[in-house]
Amino acid sequence: MTPERFRRLRAVLSRRQPDLTVLMERVNKPHNFSAVLRNCDAAGVLRAHIVPPDGGVNTHSQIAAGSGRWVPVVSHESTTEAFRCLRSDGFALVAAHPGAESIDYRDVDYTRPTCIVMGAELHGVSDEALADVDQAVAVPMEGFVRSFNVSVAAALLLMEARHQRAARGLYDEPRLSSEEFARTLFEWAYPKQARSLRRDGLPYPPLDEDGRRI
Amino acid sequence: MTPERFRRLRAVLSRRQPDLTVLMERVNKPHNFSAVLRNCDAAGVLRAHIVPPDGGVNTHSQIAAGSGRWVPVVSHESTTEAFRCLRSDGFALVAAHPGAESIDYRDVDYTRPTCIVMGAELHGVSDEALADVDQAVAVPMEGFVRSFNVSVAAALLLMEARHQRAARGLYDEPRLSSEEFARTLFEWAYPKQARSLRRDGLPYPPLDEDGRRI
Repeated sequence: MTPERFRRLRAVLSRRQPDLTVLMERVNKPHNFSAVLRNCDAAGVLRAHIVPPDGGVNTHSQIAAGSGRWVPVVSHESTTEAFRCLRSDGFALVAAHPGAESIDYRDVDYTRPTCIVMGAELHGVSDEALADVDQAVAVPMEGFVRSFNVSVAAALLLMEARHQRAARGLYDEPRLSSEEFARTLFEWAYPKQARSLRRDGLPYPPLDEDGRRI
Repeated sequence: MTPERFRRLRAVLSRRQPDLTVLMERVNKPHNFSAVLRNCDAAGVLRAHIVPPDGGVNTHSQIAAGSGRWVPVVSHESTTEAFRCLRSDGFALVAAHPGAESIDYRDVDYTRPTCIVMGAELHGVSDEALADVDQAVAVPMEGFVRSFNVSVAAALLLMEARHQRAARGLYDEPRLSSEEFARTLFEWAYPKQARSLRRDGLPYPPLDEDGRRI
């Protein structure tokens, strides 16, 4: 870990948004899964959520495994369970759904704590989820095609969220508590040592400006 | 061709934008190629442009072949040739390029005649193209990843263009001349007959409201 690398980690972490996330409901192609995580990283999402498809996401895939490094993924047993958990954390649930009752994706306030719910490749967001979200949104389309690829749709919503949040200055100051910031930064910089310390029930050591133990 | 289908073709064509297009410079993966065309369709692009990669786009791929049905693709021998042709048609050239001198992709007026230049998967827009475009634009990113997938980047720019154009009412009235509108509608509705008539040097017959020959 060079001092330059450590500063880069800290700069990115200082822009992470703990109150912006995505729930992927049974997205099952590894390249879509990792493309959505790449979009999450670009929007500063701190952690993402999934309800795995039957059989699980193929995280043996190098693509899928690598992309979770900087955007950790929380797995839920069911949509009901995921919604319960996200709501108890204060998130509004916004589903990407190309339906007649959906509003324009730009007409949502993404500066509130927001979870964007993305559905599976063929079936979209489940009826069960749609019945329970706070808002369904669609990207207006002028042509023959009726829906976007899941990673394209996720990028459109996430970059709209980023735009609104940047206008409000939400990337200008760290959004994590100083405790969570220090803990996450240590785990990003020294993942193996962090695991080992957790296993032994020991606290993480403090680090100086260049990422060295004080 | 049912009357319903014909009316759908006409409705989509009446929203097509002859003065909004994309140039793909040596994009070589068929799934990216077709994903960009799918985004073009969604933004109402009338026709797209490519400089094929060495060896050509694999249009034997079903994916790549199918997606060109509604957004025909004009092929150019080189970037220089493509730029000359697009400029003579009045297009401003806007390159998607994640560089330090690039401006925010939202700070461009896409209601002017605009061609969005997208580069190849690994190398991006060529230096040759960058030196000659009117503007380079980037999508601001807050994380570790430095660039988007080509189809994601194309979607972000095209949907921004769609948003600006919708606000100006550019999807409310047909944008093609009545002659080009009638010709294109006939080709969409009856592609085989259109080919055969063109081969024989014959004009297309007029059609009634339901797409039947008058």
